[in-house]
Amino acid sequence: MRWLKSCIPTLKENPHEAEIPSHRLMLRAGLIKKLTSGVYTFLPLGFRVLKNIERIVREEMDAIGCQEVLMPILHPTEIYEESGRLDKFGPELFTVRDSRKRLFALGPTHEEVITMVARDEMKSYRDLPQCLYQILTKFRDEIRPRYGVIRAREFIMKDAYSFNEDDESLDKTYRDMEAAYGRIIRRCGLDFRTVEADSGYIGGSESHEFMVLAENGESEILSCECGYGVNLERGTAREGGEPRGEERAVDEPYEEVETPGMTTVEEVAQFLGVGPREIVKTLLYCAGERTVAVLIPGDREVNDIKLAGHLEDAGAVRFLEPDEIKNLTGGPVGFSGPVGLPDGIDIYADPLIKSHASMIVGANRADTHLRGVRMGRDFTVTRFVDLVWAREGDPCPVCNRPMAQSSGVEVGHIFKLGDKYSTSMNATFLDRDGTGRPFIMGCYGFGISRMVAAVIEQHHDKDGIVWPMSVAPFKIMILPVNVTDETVMEQALAFERDLEDRGIEPLLDDRDVSPGVKFKDADLVGIPLRLTVGKKLREGKVELFFRAERRIEEIPVDDALERIIRQIGT
Amino acid sequence: MRWLKSCIPTLKENPHEAEIPSHRLMLRAGLIKKLTSGVYTFLPLGFRVLKNIERIVREEMDAIGCQEVLMPILHPTEIYEESGRLDKFGPELFTVRDSRKRLFALGPTHEEVITMVARDEMKSYRDLPQCLYQILTKFRDEIRPRYGVIRAREFIMKDAYSFNEDDESLDKTYRDMEAAYGRIIRRCGLDFRTVEADSGYIGGSESHEFMVLAENGESEILSCECGYGVNLERGTAREGGEPRGEERAVDEPYEEVETPGMTTVEEVAQFLGVGPREIVKTLLYCAGERTVAVLIPGDREVNDIKLAGHLEDAGAVRFLEPDEIKNLTGGPVGFSGPVGLPDGIDIYADPLIKSHASMIVGANRADTHLRGVRMGRDFTVTRFVDLVWAREGDPCPVCNRPMAQSSGVEVGHIFKLGDKYSTSMNATFLDRDGTGRPFIMGCYGFGISRMVAAVIEQHHDKDGIVWPMSVAPFKIMILPVNVTDETVMEQALAFERDLEDRGIEPLLDDRDVSPGVKFKDADLVGIPLRLTVGKKLREGKVELFFRAERRIEEIPVDDALERIIRQIGT
Repeated sequence: MRWLKSCIPTLKENPHEAEIPSHRLMLRAGLIKKLTSGVYTFLPLGFRVLKNIERIVREEMDAIGCQEVLMPILHPTEIYEESGRLDKFGPELFTVRDSRKRLFALGPTHEEVITMVARDEMKSYRDLPQCLYQILTKFRDEIRPRYGVIRAREFIMKDAYSFNEDDESLDKTYRDMEAAYGRIIRRCGLDFRTVEADSGYIGGSESHEFMVLAENGESEILSCECGYGVNLERGTAREGGEPRGEERAVDEPYEEVETPGMTTVEEVAQFLGVGPREIVKTLLYCAGERTVAVLIPGDREVNDIKLAGHLEDAGAVRFLEPDEIKNLTGGPVGFSGPVGLPDGIDIYADPLIKSHASMIVGANRADTHLRGVRMGRDFTVTRFVDLVWAREGDPCPVCNRPMAQSSGVEVGHIFKLGDKYSTSMNATFLDRDGTGRPFIMGCYGFGISRMVAAVIEQHHDKDGIVWPMSVAPFKIMILPVNVTDETVMEQALAFERDLEDRGIEPLLDDRDVSPGVKFKDADLVGIPLRLTVGKKLREGKVELFFRAERRIEEIPVDDALERIIRQIGT
Repeated sequence: MRWLKSCIPTLKENPHEAEIPSHRLMLRAGLIKKLTSGVYTFLPLGFRVLKNIERIVREEMDAIGCQEVLMPILHPTEIYEESGRLDKFGPELFTVRDSRKRLFALGPTHEEVITMVARDEMKSYRDLPQCLYQILTKFRDEIRPRYGVIRAREFIMKDAYSFNEDDESLDKTYRDMEAAYGRIIRRCGLDFRTVEADSGYIGGSESHEFMVLAENGESEILSCECGYGVNLERGTAREGGEPRGEERAVDEPYEEVETPGMTTVEEVAQFLGVGPREIVKTLLYCAGERTVAVLIPGDREVNDIKLAGHLEDAGAVRFLEPDEIKNLTGGPVGFSGPVGLPDGIDIYADPLIKSHASMIVGANRADTHLRGVRMGRDFTVTRFVDLVWAREGDPCPVCNRPMAQSSGVEVGHIFKLGDKYSTSMNATFLDRDGTGRPFIMGCYGFGISRMVAAVIEQHHDKDGIVWPMSVAPFKIMILPVNVTDETVMEQALAFERDLEDRGIEPLLDDRDVSPGVKFKDADLVGIPLRLTVGKKLREGKVELFFRAERRIEEIPVDDALERIIRQIGT
């Protein structure tokens, strides 16, 4: 391919809208062009990377026996009514009416469509397991599209769906898929963690995300040397075994302490000469018709996603307003506590507070706290539920070593769906006993366009992208320093021809621009090998530049071809 | 690939909704599954054909130097306002609003998006010519989706766009593309015609369609042995040179003849003892504010598409109502004529009537015609314009031999756009003189999903599909007649392994169903070669069946692999 006629519009300056390296570099290296917020064209270089990733994904899906299909983008919304999922999507679902006023969604994910295929076409346990996948553009009306292709409104995803006869078979497919995802990400040259994750609106009993480690990743994860990992959103806070709270005699009653104007944990702890962990925070929420008091250790924060999950049936969750708190407890904000709350208020407590021998809590009265309060004796917990954010240093649930926190880009997400869709959509097969049973399903997403950005997040330097060989748009580029020098250009074209004859397509920079511009652009687009044909040609030599190491080898012209082929082969 | 776990849901019965062979067979052979009207899933077998066609298209596009890109599906409608095309699309455009109420179209074609890329990224004549293409799902809200994937609402198209510096360069790209399309269609094993076509809402100065000949094709074409072809909609009616009409002295006035109750050409011709070609029909239309009388030979029909094109500026075209005709001409329907029409009525005549020495026309009075009317003397034609349908037997405009009419499926359409989009969207480059000039553009569509149906239209028999080797989902299938016979099954699996080792993926029918079902299904899905492993195995033989010729070769087991490889290689 020749640079001049190939639409590779490099930019000298960093585009102001790009906040993270991959977004900046995808725009600067001419991989993508924005059409509108969250909607991009992949230009020739970007498209080639996309195709390389697609190829790797296909090979690994085929290797575990998945069959490729292509489902439609237009989904009649009736199918979401059937699965009961229409409301769950909310405003992120793009919808369109046809000329007969029938409503369609632009497919964000395809559980319903594929379940309809299985319902009609897979009749017997003999047909199972089956796993069908596709690579298709998906749509989500992100409220705040950002980070280029990482959070786009139109993006390319591989989605696979398995139909199994039982949980054991599903587990096998799930493990096969997990292993295949690992191979895909490693083949793309990336370091990653597999983490436990929430199932979100997809649903199901178990799910894992595949996080490519990246400083600017949107997702936070906790992971342990033992291999365990969890999405921070979902991690359960755990602590070492020692009990907290002051040692007091069991029958020693709590005492009132004056804490004038102290509404924060830090102020109270400092004033009373204890650690914040000794204090238990009481937060008051309203969810639909219900009022809930939430108890967590003073040094932790409530994870709103978890809380909303626990109160899902009640309705949207919000903090009580100051006047509501005053009316309810008698005290102002900052002095709420679990002792003496009116009837009808549920008390949800994080299990972490079980380790408190005694605790300091608000007194539901201005400028007053209670010290030496005991759970069970002075108040009753309605439910113990996981409520707080886990954090770096929390012990690993597998091996108890402290976990580390890191950022990542989520490139894959797999789910055990069980019979969620097959039951609601009445999709059954005849099992070995001849009775109809719902399929046990799994679904498996992988972000193809997002992966392009993930690769760059892990593979770039101050000069530009540093493509791994496996996904690079070209494995080698030929850079004739001066295209008006006939000898140089003839040699460059000879290399192009020879490489093509050997099945390697090079990128030839045939632009008549200064060497400075050419070298800068070459660094920016980051082709792994660069063959420079320049002044040294008079001495019968060319330069082979290794982009990742920034290392130069001087090579006799006649040896160059074999040297390159050897390098690409490895 | 194994049949049992691959979702190949064959049907015994013809689905009632399918009107033509390709639609019937795509459903029956389990290539596609309908989600809703005009919206289909490609199942594994259908998907493999799609991929084969895509591969051939890619190879031919790359071979003529096109670069592949991927543009978005969501198009902000502002870009159509810029090109002036928003109204032209009409109700076939699917539109969707995002959560901020901004309007998007689902891309039916991508001239605007690519012109924006060129406007920003191609600066100089040195960057030209460039041709960018993509393979992407497109959307059109067809009022009446039909024929399966042939007229679908969601379909896969290859669209290419060229940017040239002048007409000469465009012409070269256009010819390259025309040749590439020919190679694509021939590689898919199809007989086709290239025909002159209308540019429709795409616009531009020249366009050609590529018609795969098929009895049930939606398009009608006229073509000549010399290679010329034209879409019937656009063909110009021509006739042999001899003059028509009765020979009369130049100064002999016309005469009134009584034609009681005769409102059709046939009745008048028979009554007067002349051929229908001697009569000239006068049809009265209203277009917006204008009234137009249309004159055509009695044995021809008005082509409404052409008439509407000529009157495009005036407004929608309709016939005058009987009472309007009476008020205007004084005569009833069926007796209109060009002589003595009131002022202000334009007379449009097809050039064919120039060959009439004299003519018989309606008298604008009940039961009366005029005989011996002369154009120029008795009435004046406002404009001669091409108005009638061409038909089989009309002489070829290139070589004058009579043309034949046939049906076809339009699989490709190429257009010379000129500066239509670049001027309206202000997309310019710096030419050799350093002045800014609009790009000269071409665009080139090819229907990928439609091509699957076109192949079947030309390649099927009463038993099912007969795939050409180049696009077949599998080149060979292995059919163990009885999978419970261990010897048979072992040999079948050995063939599967050996073929895979040689880089050929076979389809293995591993179902435990009757031989009758297996053979019937095998005929239906139409894999070119079928290796039957059955009773003859005891004699050390297997059968190789050639689907197209329905020919069987008995082959010693040990020779089978090489025989197959030789066959596939040819």
